[in-house]
Amino acid sequence: MNIFCSVSLNEIQKDFFKKKIDDNFFFLEDSREKSFENFMNCEICFGNPEVDWVKKSKNLKWIQLESVGFEKYTKIKIPGLKISNLRGFFSIPVAETALAGILSLKRGIYRLSSLKDKKKWLGSRIRPTLNLLNGSNVLILGAGSIGSKIKTLLEKFNCKILMYDKFKNDADLININDLDIHLPDVDILIGCLPENDETRQLLDNYRINLLKKSSIIVNVGRGSLIDEKTLIKNIKSEKLAGAFLDVTDKEPISDDSPLWSIPNIILSQHSGGGYESEVNDKILFFKENLSRYKNKILPKNIVL
Amino acid sequence: MNIFCSVSLNEIQKDFFKKKIDDNFFFLEDSREKSFENFMNCEICFGNPEVDWVKKSKNLKWIQLESVGFEKYTKIKIPGLKISNLRGFFSIPVAETALAGILSLKRGIYRLSSLKDKKKWLGSRIRPTLNLLNGSNVLILGAGSIGSKIKTLLEKFNCKILMYDKFKNDADLININDLDIHLPDVDILIGCLPENDETRQLLDNYRINLLKKSSIIVNVGRGSLIDEKTLIKNIKSEKLAGAFLDVTDKEPISDDSPLWSIPNIILSQHSGGGYESEVNDKILFFKENLSRYKNKILPKNIVL
Repeated sequence: MNIFCSVSLNEIQKDFFKKKIDDNFFFLEDSREKSFENFMNCEICFGNPEVDWVKKSKNLKWIQLESVGFEKYTKIKIPGLKISNLRGFFSIPVAETALAGILSLKRGIYRLSSLKDKKKWLGSRIRPTLNLLNGSNVLILGAGSIGSKIKTLLEKFNCKILMYDKFKNDADLININDLDIHLPDVDILIGCLPENDETRQLLDNYRINLLKKSSIIVNVGRGSLIDEKTLIKNIKSEKLAGAFLDVTDKEPISDDSPLWSIPNIILSQHSGGGYESEVNDKILFFKENLSRYKNKILPKNIVL
Repeated sequence: MNIFCSVSLNEIQKDFFKKKIDDNFFFLEDSREKSFENFMNCEICFGNPEVDWVKKSKNLKWIQLESVGFEKYTKIKIPGLKISNLRGFFSIPVAETALAGILSLKRGIYRLSSLKDKKKWLGSRIRPTLNLLNGSNVLILGAGSIGSKIKTLLEKFNCKILMYDKFKNDADLININDLDIHLPDVDILIGCLPENDETRQLLDNYRINLLKKSSIIVNVGRGSLIDEKTLIKNIKSEKLAGAFLDVTDKEPISDDSPLWSIPNIILSQHSGGGYESEVNDKILFFKENLSRYKNKILPKNIVL
C-alpha cells in the first residue's frame, strides 16, 4: 500500500513517521516533479495535497487531512475518494490560545510586554486600566469541539455563556435573528465557525456595530467570518475595546495592514492549534485511522 | 467620628467616597504637614498610613488597610488599636492575572507581541514552540483565597494540583520536606504566600535547582519568596523555561535589572490585584466595615 506524506516533516519527525508507519511511503521531495510522480502512485495521502494533484490522481482512495478545514476540497468529485479531517484534534490548544488571548486583553499582558521592552515601570498606574473576565457575558459562535471546550474553560470564570450554532439543536441560539438580539449585551464575542457561504462575513458592518464599546472580539475559526475593515475602524475609534485574532482575512498579513499597528489587537498568526508534539500526534492519529482503513473499517472523521 | 483617608483618590473616586461615607473625613492634602495634622485628629484611617504616623497617633482606634499585606505594621504596639486588611478582596483579579501569565507563557502571547511590534509574520513556524497548560503538574504555595481561586481555575485545564501551606491542615502538603520531594515533578510552581520569616527566600538556590528545565515559576504573592539571582541565572541558562512575576524583590525594578531583558520572563509590575472599579470596591468594603465598627461589632478581617 503506497502512502504519500504531504505533511512537511523535519528529520526527527521523519524518523518518528518511519517508526510508526510500516507501509511503503514517500515524503515530499525537493523536486516538485518527483513529488508529483510519487503522489500519482499512491492510494493514500496523509496531509493536505494540492487540489490540482488530487484532481489528476488515478490511484488515490483516501486522504487524511492534517487540518480541520477542508473547504478547498469540497469541489473535487472523484468517485470512491474519501477524505477525513482532524475534527476535535485542535480543541485543547485552540481553546487555550483563546483563553490566553482573552485574559491577555483583560489583564493587560500585551501592554505589559511593550512596557518591558522599554524598561518602563508604571506600577500601580496600570491597575485601573485592567478588566476582569469574571462574570462576563460571552457569546460563542460555533458549538463544535473548540467552542464547547472554550465554554467549559470560561464557566469557571463565572461567565454567562450563550452558544450559537445553526446546525446544533442543543445550541442556545440557532436562529441568526436571535444572534442580533443578543449582540448588544455581549462582553466577549468568540468566533469558532467553519468557513462556508453562511459564515462568510457573518460578522458584518451591521452586526459589529451592535456590540458595545467595552466588548472584545475573538476569532479562532476562519478569518472570513469578520468584516475586518469595520473591526479595525471600530477599535481605532474606540467603538470596540479590542480583538484577539488567531485567523485573519489574508494570511500572512500584508506588511501594510493596519492590523499590525493597533495596540488593542493581539495577533497569534494562526498558531492556535500548535504545540510541541502536534506533528507527532497527527502521525499517531493517521496511524490509527490507517489501521481502520486497512481493516476495511471507515476511517474516523470522514468529511467528503 | 473623624476619618482619615490615606488612599490616593482621583476626583471621581473622591466624589464616590463623599457619596458613600457620611462622617467627617479628610483626604490627603498636597501639604504633608497638613495631612499629618488631620491624621492626628482621626479615630479611623482608611488606607495604608505611614508607620511613623501611626506610632505618633493618639486618637487612632482602627485602620482599614487597602491591601492584604500588613507586614510593616506588625511591630507597632498601640493598646486598643485594631487593624483590618483586605483578605480575599484580590483573589479574583490576582488569580486571573496568574492564569493570564501562565497561558501567555504556554501559548507564546508575549513573543507574539514582539513579532507584532516588528510586523514580522512567522505563522506556522510558531506552532512547535508552543506548549499546553492541559495536564500540567502544578504546585501552589499558599492555600489562602488567592491560591484556592487559582486552583479552581486550573482544575478545568486538567491540571494535577498540589497545595502547600504550613498553616492549613487541609493543604496537600504541610511539611517543607514534602515540598522538596515534589519539586522535581512540577511543571508550574505558583507562589501566593504572605511575607514572613518562614516564606522569605523559601524558593532558594537549592529548591529552584530541584525544578526541571521545562518548568515555569509564577509569583503573585511577595517578591521576597524567590532567590531572584538563581531564578535569573537558571532562566538565562535554560535550566528553567520561564517565569511570570507580578511581584519582585525590588519594586519598582531598577533600570539595570536583568529582569527587564530576559525574553521568557513576564513582568506585571504588581498590577495583579487591579481592575477598573478596584478603588470604588475598596470604598464599599470600608463602608461596610465602618458600619460594623460604629455598631460596636468587630470589623471583618482584623489582623492586628
